[in-house]
Amino acid sequence: MDQRNAAHTHVRPDGPGTTVPVGVEDPAVATDREYLRRAIALATLSPLPDPNPRVGAVLVSPTGTVVGEGWHHGAGTPHAEVEALRAAGAAARGATAYVSLEPCNHTGRTGPCATALVEAGVARVVYAQPDPNPAAAGGATTLRAAGVEVLGGLLAEEAEEVNRIWTRAVRLGRPWVTWKVAATIDGHTAAADGSSQWITCPEARADVHHRRALCDAIVVGTGTALADDPRLTVRHADGTLAERQPLRVVVGDRQVPPDARLRSDEAETLFLPGGDPRRALAELDRVGVRHAWLEGGATLAAAFLREGLVDEVLVYQAPALLGSGLPLVGDLGVRTLADALKFTITDVGLVGTDVRITMAPATKEA
Amino acid sequence: MDQRNAAHTHVRPDGPGTTVPVGVEDPAVATDREYLRRAIALATLSPLPDPNPRVGAVLVSPTGTVVGEGWHHGAGTPHAEVEALRAAGAAARGATAYVSLEPCNHTGRTGPCATALVEAGVARVVYAQPDPNPAAAGGATTLRAAGVEVLGGLLAEEAEEVNRIWTRAVRLGRPWVTWKVAATIDGHTAAADGSSQWITCPEARADVHHRRALCDAIVVGTGTALADDPRLTVRHADGTLAERQPLRVVVGDRQVPPDARLRSDEAETLFLPGGDPRRALAELDRVGVRHAWLEGGATLAAAFLREGLVDEVLVYQAPALLGSGLPLVGDLGVRTLADALKFTITDVGLVGTDVRITMAPATKEA
Repeated sequence: MDQRNAAHTHVRPDGPGTTVPVGVEDPAVATDREYLRRAIALATLSPLPDPNPRVGAVLVSPTGTVVGEGWHHGAGTPHAEVEALRAAGAAARGATAYVSLEPCNHTGRTGPCATALVEAGVARVVYAQPDPNPAAAGGATTLRAAGVEVLGGLLAEEAEEVNRIWTRAVRLGRPWVTWKVAATIDGHTAAADGSSQWITCPEARADVHHRRALCDAIVVGTGTALADDPRLTVRHADGTLAERQPLRVVVGDRQVPPDARLRSDEAETLFLPGGDPRRALAELDRVGVRHAWLEGGATLAAAFLREGLVDEVLVYQAPALLGSGLPLVGDLGVRTLADALKFTITDVGLVGTDVRITMAPATKEA
Repeated sequence: MDQRNAAHTHVRPDGPGTTVPVGVEDPAVATDREYLRRAIALATLSPLPDPNPRVGAVLVSPTGTVVGEGWHHGAGTPHAEVEALRAAGAAARGATAYVSLEPCNHTGRTGPCATALVEAGVARVVYAQPDPNPAAAGGATTLRAAGVEVLGGLLAEEAEEVNRIWTRAVRLGRPWVTWKVAATIDGHTAAADGSSQWITCPEARADVHHRRALCDAIVVGTGTALADDPRLTVRHADGTLAERQPLRVVVGDRQVPPDARLRSDEAETLFLPGGDPRRALAELDRVGVRHAWLEGGATLAAAFLREGLVDEVLVYQAPALLGSGLPLVGDLGVRTLADALKFTITDVGLVGTDVRITMAPATKEA
């Protein structure tokens, strides 16, 4: 499974300075990996979506006994390390802390975890993914300065996968944007008379529903809000509302009537006038949105695309031809083929009777 | 490989009337299948494309010796049965003829094969695919009337696969039409300024080239002929002309200038004024076209689609967005979603960096 890591040379930065030859497994590293994998498994118990990363922590005594475990239960609750320290109590002294993400160093709604680990007398910290957040990084430095032995980066890719979108959003300094569009093969999202229900098959619509339920916010333009009067809520298969609803975000200056469905109390709704994608994303970042799900319409999508603010495109194509109707995307300011916006396809296949294409801007990571 | 056929009960229509229970292999049928498979293999040596079906024939003496083989070398040359009879000479008397397609009964450019087999004294004929052509069918009847034992339909599907398009064209009474279109994900075949070279990647273009080389005719509208000045020739990888060129067909009333590339002597060109798809196909049928490759543009494709004269659609999609430009297809007379032309996808995947979608009208066989 993890032969690549096993073949690396691991240097323990604050350890005795020994290295292990490539291809030979250091028994100590094998043990570290085992506990760290447990911490990563605990991380997956954290909620998604959430403004915070999903983190798990395991505290192990010098004799190899697990004395505490924890995972993050969502924004505003204690971090995973603090959960584990609470569970361990006095047994944390001298223990090794295994954490799926570098312990934080900053005081947000909770205190810095690095300080909490030092104060609890933890002797050694092994973490997987380094913190990509410039505002939070530095936990390792704080720990080392306090005399704690620190090993970071083991199983980093595995851990990052648990926080795939969060990591990208933090690196970008704004929400990661998925643009989803459903159209016919000839690129129309509605017929000439405006009819668009349902272009795609039930399986494709269920796939969309499932995916947008994992996002923090669903973003539409006022044009779509007026034309389709969408609910923008996440529902179970039986039609009942899911417990957690993504934030509904309406971008633009047109007036949305008081009885619009998206003004219902089924979910929160944020109105962002002005229609500037960059400013809209800055505001969404501020309120803790890491993954924004852009649903349309063509004008708003074009505005995001022109600014390079779409990170991933999900195209659902129905095997149908309309010959006329609403365009898949609005004017991109492109007049000649060489200026087309280019993408790289990362996945293509059938969902029910439709095609689903996943693609990323050609210049960005997939 | 062929367990389905092996599990069938085969009744020899003119034989002793014995049946073999399901699941038990009649040794005589096993022998028939063996020689018939050889005939089908010979059929694949016949040229493609060609107005005629690809056919192979094997003559086997009563003692089990192959005394003659043959396959069709293309329109205007002897049929496979005649080739095999020539090879066998007097040894054809009393032999069994294995033929991949029911022997023809009509006099075209060559005489009827059924008569030739009777005259040569062949005692038994085993054929795979029944002739789907109403004008040619009846060979089995003629043979039986002359006292020849006839077994038909063994390995029929295998044999039909060798003449997949020909069979469909014969059943339709007109050429089978493949419409190929290359566009961006948002359904534009060219940018606003008309630039379209190259929307798709080299692998997709090579795939198109390979596929159209297997067709009898490449069909474009006068609009495309004028806008793109295409060659419409099939070339080898090194740029040299392939020996056999599909017929170039230009449909429509606009004048194509004398120096247009498609007027070159590299291939034949047929001009079909009027722009009526049904009449164009009737004319193509008359000149022996079985598989027509419709390349565009949007107006001609729409005319074929409106008449239900597209049997297969090949869409090559480049992962790019233009936001404006030429439409993938012209007006289809569709105003509301319920009237959209619907298709069934039979294949989807990547070709190079592009998506290739193969689909058939939802009401037709794939």
